[in-house]
Amino acid sequence: MALTNREILLASRPVGMPTEENFSLVENSVPNISGGEVLIKTLYLSVDPYMRGRMRGVRTYVDPFELGKPLTGGVVGKVIESNHPNFKVGEIVEGRLNWADYSTSDGSNIRKVDPSIAPISTAIGAVGMPGLTAYFGLLYIGKPKEGETVVVSGAAGAVGTIVGQIAKIKGCRVVGIAGTEEKCQYLVNELGFDVAVNYKTENVLDSLKKACPNGVDVYFDNVGGEISDSVMTLINFQSRTVLCGQIAQYNDVKPSLGPRIQVQLIQRSSMMQGFIVGDFKERNEEGYNQLGKWVQSGEIKYHENIVDGLENAPKAFMGLFTGENIGKQLVKVSEE
Amino acid sequence: MALTNREILLASRPVGMPTEENFSLVENSVPNISGGEVLIKTLYLSVDPYMRGRMRGVRTYVDPFELGKPLTGGVVGKVIESNHPNFKVGEIVEGRLNWADYSTSDGSNIRKVDPSIAPISTAIGAVGMPGLTAYFGLLYIGKPKEGETVVVSGAAGAVGTIVGQIAKIKGCRVVGIAGTEEKCQYLVNELGFDVAVNYKTENVLDSLKKACPNGVDVYFDNVGGEISDSVMTLINFQSRTVLCGQIAQYNDVKPSLGPRIQVQLIQRSSMMQGFIVGDFKERNEEGYNQLGKWVQSGEIKYHENIVDGLENAPKAFMGLFTGENIGKQLVKVSEE
Repeated sequence: MALTNREILLASRPVGMPTEENFSLVENSVPNISGGEVLIKTLYLSVDPYMRGRMRGVRTYVDPFELGKPLTGGVVGKVIESNHPNFKVGEIVEGRLNWADYSTSDGSNIRKVDPSIAPISTAIGAVGMPGLTAYFGLLYIGKPKEGETVVVSGAAGAVGTIVGQIAKIKGCRVVGIAGTEEKCQYLVNELGFDVAVNYKTENVLDSLKKACPNGVDVYFDNVGGEISDSVMTLINFQSRTVLCGQIAQYNDVKPSLGPRIQVQLIQRSSMMQGFIVGDFKERNEEGYNQLGKWVQSGEIKYHENIVDGLENAPKAFMGLFTGENIGKQLVKVSEE
Repeated sequence: MALTNREILLASRPVGMPTEENFSLVENSVPNISGGEVLIKTLYLSVDPYMRGRMRGVRTYVDPFELGKPLTGGVVGKVIESNHPNFKVGEIVEGRLNWADYSTSDGSNIRKVDPSIAPISTAIGAVGMPGLTAYFGLLYIGKPKEGETVVVSGAAGAVGTIVGQIAKIKGCRVVGIAGTEEKCQYLVNELGFDVAVNYKTENVLDSLKKACPNGVDVYFDNVGGEISDSVMTLINFQSRTVLCGQIAQYNDVKPSLGPRIQVQLIQRSSMMQGFIVGDFKERNEEGYNQLGKWVQSGEIKYHENIVDGLENAPKAFMGLFTGENIGKQLVKVSEE
């Protein structure tokens, strides 16, 4: 059976907002696996804001995507051929693989997914990288205490929705910031956030002042920019700001200016820390287990927005920057 | 004996750089002490950059100075009358007292100074608040490891000189930033800094790149502003920025803008923390003891710049913002 393998390549580096022209789709034959390798059929593919950084061609915490090569990201797939002792044909795996119908792996960059815990798509969502990001960032950097106020920006996104729910589990007052009425209602009515602030229709600072009468103890920041400027004016003594993403800046062509926050941090003996999920990789098992339990018990709910077809992955990716979707943005590439 | 007590009051709140008009000197009679109190004759008085913040009339981590009331700050004095069981006439004490010839205390805001450890003036310098600030900020927030690179701004000041020397004791490469050739030579030749960068005559970023070939692991920031913007472009993975002071901003009439540093902090999994010395007050004894030992052994050197006369305290304070002096700025108010 001579299968075709479609791959999506980085055709050019975006300047500002990414466009369709930055991507190209090519067709190749499905790769052969050698000793110790597995062949994986892509079922779901994850699009995430951090990928914009890798398109820049500048080395940061991960190598940049190479021009003319397939993009890579979180993939849930099925093992369809195996020369690896630990992975059997038919098993579901997750790992950072190609934006393609098929990928190979030597086993070092994939993990098995237990379909009995939750739908397998959550392995790149609530029980995957975005879930771990929320879990580690909030609990190990934000360190929320019962009764404290936690503010989350990008609250309706894949990470923000989990952050807010974990903060509620920990007994905090939780205020989310999002960009549509639908998102705000989802946060409050479905996920149990105490307050949601619509940054497109409300004066963020005024609304936050009302929503946080005791100030802000933990700020989990996915967004940056002017929204964060407002939150930072309300931080408490010994507060913690968890810097997870700065989506407001990702498409900037030149660095943007903002108020210098250092004086504020000194006046409040306040801490700000950037991180990526990989900083906590020795705790991955703990995170997967706890998130799996919370999802199974219903204490953590999740929402997936699924686009059909590998060819629509670029469009799904671009949608991250226009604030279209609630929860985790996925691309369904094939049926199990 | 009817002694006169001169006091320096905050006459008006400075807008921008403080001027002589913001201060006034009044003469009163020396206060009588009641039960449990001591009367203290001021020997040395400390002027410190943080006091500018207290002149603003805005509550931060300490209450603002009140208009028409005496300024307060670090004072080394001698007990000349005592109704307090723990303090005897003739003992040397240190505490936050009035800018005045005489102050009273109920004992709660003063500590005894042991003149056998170091000259008593160091109780408001190297073995006092500025020393503790360096000690706690560097060791408990900056957490330098042997072989790491530590950059200090405001390096020739009361805190910066101690920070750099502790970092050398801990086996770090130490780079100081200061504003005169004399200061830079003092840092390298007298205190053992590896490199000193003169921000007034050099391109700070170029010089720092040369001075920090392995990047910056700990940045101890006394200054803020554009100097810090340059340092922040060189921070390493998992680096720590200790926010101690932002003297470049203290006289700003409106908040100044700078590059948003959050993306940088995320890309480097980097931490930034503001603090004040009081955050570590349960460790004061440890700090005083260790600093005293280092000063006695000569591992920590200090430099004092002493202005004579209470009436010159405002001028000494204003000099902090024009970068005139090396080391600790003191006012000598009277002989022992």
